[in-house]
Amino acid sequence: MTKSAEIVCIGTELLLGHVVNTNASWLATQCAASGIDVYYQTVVGDRVSRIVDVLALAAQRAHIVICTGGLGPTMDDVSREALAAHTCTTLVVDPSAAMRLQEAAARSGRTVDESYYRQAHTLDGADVLQNDVGLAIGTALVHDGVRYVLLPGPPREMKAMFSNYALPWLAVDGVRLHSIMVRLTGIGEGDVARALEPLIRHQTDPTIATYAGIGDVLVRITTRADAQASMRCAPIVQTMTSLLGQYVYAMEDVSLPTVLVHRLTERMQTLAVAESCTGGAVAHAITSVPGSSRVLRGAIVAYTDACKQDVLGVSQDVLAQNGAVSDAAARELASCVRRRLGSDFGIATTGTLGPDDPVREAFVAVAHKGGCIVHHVPLVGTDRDTNKQRIAMAALACLWRHTT
Amino acid sequence: MTKSAEIVCIGTELLLGHVVNTNASWLATQCAASGIDVYYQTVVGDRVSRIVDVLALAAQRAHIVICTGGLGPTMDDVSREALAAHTCTTLVVDPSAAMRLQEAAARSGRTVDESYYRQAHTLDGADVLQNDVGLAIGTALVHDGVRYVLLPGPPREMKAMFSNYALPWLAVDGVRLHSIMVRLTGIGEGDVARALEPLIRHQTDPTIATYAGIGDVLVRITTRADAQASMRCAPIVQTMTSLLGQYVYAMEDVSLPTVLVHRLTERMQTLAVAESCTGGAVAHAITSVPGSSRVLRGAIVAYTDACKQDVLGVSQDVLAQNGAVSDAAARELASCVRRRLGSDFGIATTGTLGPDDPVREAFVAVAHKGGCIVHHVPLVGTDRDTNKQRIAMAALACLWRHTT
Repeated sequence: MTKSAEIVCIGTELLLGHVVNTNASWLATQCAASGIDVYYQTVVGDRVSRIVDVLALAAQRAHIVICTGGLGPTMDDVSREALAAHTCTTLVVDPSAAMRLQEAAARSGRTVDESYYRQAHTLDGADVLQNDVGLAIGTALVHDGVRYVLLPGPPREMKAMFSNYALPWLAVDGVRLHSIMVRLTGIGEGDVARALEPLIRHQTDPTIATYAGIGDVLVRITTRADAQASMRCAPIVQTMTSLLGQYVYAMEDVSLPTVLVHRLTERMQTLAVAESCTGGAVAHAITSVPGSSRVLRGAIVAYTDACKQDVLGVSQDVLAQNGAVSDAAARELASCVRRRLGSDFGIATTGTLGPDDPVREAFVAVAHKGGCIVHHVPLVGTDRDTNKQRIAMAALACLWRHTT
Repeated sequence: MTKSAEIVCIGTELLLGHVVNTNASWLATQCAASGIDVYYQTVVGDRVSRIVDVLALAAQRAHIVICTGGLGPTMDDVSREALAAHTCTTLVVDPSAAMRLQEAAARSGRTVDESYYRQAHTLDGADVLQNDVGLAIGTALVHDGVRYVLLPGPPREMKAMFSNYALPWLAVDGVRLHSIMVRLTGIGEGDVARALEPLIRHQTDPTIATYAGIGDVLVRITTRADAQASMRCAPIVQTMTSLLGQYVYAMEDVSLPTVLVHRLTERMQTLAVAESCTGGAVAHAITSVPGSSRVLRGAIVAYTDACKQDVLGVSQDVLAQNGAVSDAAARELASCVRRRLGSDFGIATTGTLGPDDPVREAFVAVAHKGGCIVHHVPLVGTDRDTNKQRIAMAALACLWRHTT
């Protein structure tokens, strides 16, 4: 039987919007992957009475209540107290956790007060969930047929405790999900959705969902992870590939820079980048991939014409005759950086993205042994960072298409 | 009287964790700044019956119910239907919104079906909230003394509609909050918290909260926005400045790159960057600031020794004798890029951050007319992007300190 869970995030900082609730989305993904349905997420502040109300409601509408936050040492960390009140249980000290706290205090040489040891509190009759990366222990308790889990708020501690201890404790007997991610570039989400519309309309299992990234689109095909899972997904994958294959850069959850770095590494080819309007975004994306140092010869961010001419050796005539934002300038930048750094490929970007620029557009180019390809990138919207990312992705997509 | 609101985010993609709920935190900040208390946030999927239950509960515990999501054209966009069911109201078409939809369809040349016009639906007797950046209109309705607001899910549309139309419609008569942001760099959150501990311990109004960024720390001082607000904050700001003034780079919510670009622009000074381990992250951060083209001469991402020598003119001896990751190499990179691009300052980064590197550390340097400053940056953790950002921030902090 599929179990359902409610995710309860506790913390006034969430209610004030000081912190984005990434814990909820992470836990939601984990639950989905474990076959646990989530119908509700609730956020509540550090007030015992309100947390008790939320727990009571969650217990009515879910089999599992997963709480995060409020396990720290300060007086406004009250999640244990709230669960104790809701389940009429008493708080007890876990001796081995208390000893660990004592040792940690001794090691750091800090003086600690009584409240520090709150982090070793749990509930009478509950199981302790170990914290491998922090001090506050978690709590797992069955009460009136409902399973309660208390996890810490800091994402690193929460994730480790959930994966290593809470999930095994929940011993979920529901089915797991099987997901296939298809990543596309060079096509908008609207066009992907329209192409897949006949598939999506008549499909209930597997389900198909599309998401728009910056410069790419993600399609997720999901079904239950049983023996027939791949078989049920196969015809959809096949139809997708035949309709949109030319745009598909990955059949798994990897980024376009990762695909490119792996491809060039395998072929022992190298890359050089000349960036004008993207100002380092292309290089930053490539160097975020481990192993990129084997592929990237270097990158030159040349905002000024002087730098373009002096460092890259771009022809002054080309810039003067065509302007720095032009098909010809992109071509010249890509060819020059390729030659200058002695790489197999040269990528270039040039464009206007200031709020005062009358036309916001960019050109991206890829220079290779046999010549140079240029693409025009029209820009909508004025958000500087989004446009930088969009142009960087367009440049990488250009290289990806050329090397396919 | 202070009003309270509940934020209800509608969308199965949130329950599945496919999307991080940034709408909730943004709305929470806006409510806090408008003096609206938020005690609960709820996330629910695209199911009318569950949304109705959530609305009923929210109406019991808040004066204002702010919903986001579920206003699009597809059959699983059911927020209007749910509010209609909860308030026993009928759905009606807003004629001017329908006309706008018709015009948009004609312009794009797409054929649209009946469901497209769902975006012009609102509730009988409700006020329409205009959508300045998208097609789906919002709805504002008073029912049984509770104010309901339906906003679209896409963040850009939601933000514009909330700020321009929902907030004025709510005509909140509660007090607004006055916040002062203090941004520090070169010091950890723990040390900031310890230095401010006597202040934080005895302070209830204004409140003081600290947040750790990557390479910087944010302190937020908050009080009610009445005539005495600045006066109540002044002694805290003064104490903070006297204790931690040397680390404070801004007394408002601006980034370190922004502070630096403005400072150098005012002084008509220029900058050049040589990046090894940060691979473009420094240049990307600087060029994200509008107007940075007046300051940044250029940046060179030199991963290989060949590129360092060939493009930057780094001495082979320095690299051979000290290694590419060394105090001397950072110094040489910064001086060379400053000379090569003819700028007032040269920034350089070099370091090891691969998971296989035995020691993970970096050096950042700033070369100026009178010499060169180098800082050693020890790295904890193995997350590549976090380390790139941390080193980039350390390099910028180094320039900030030198130009103070």
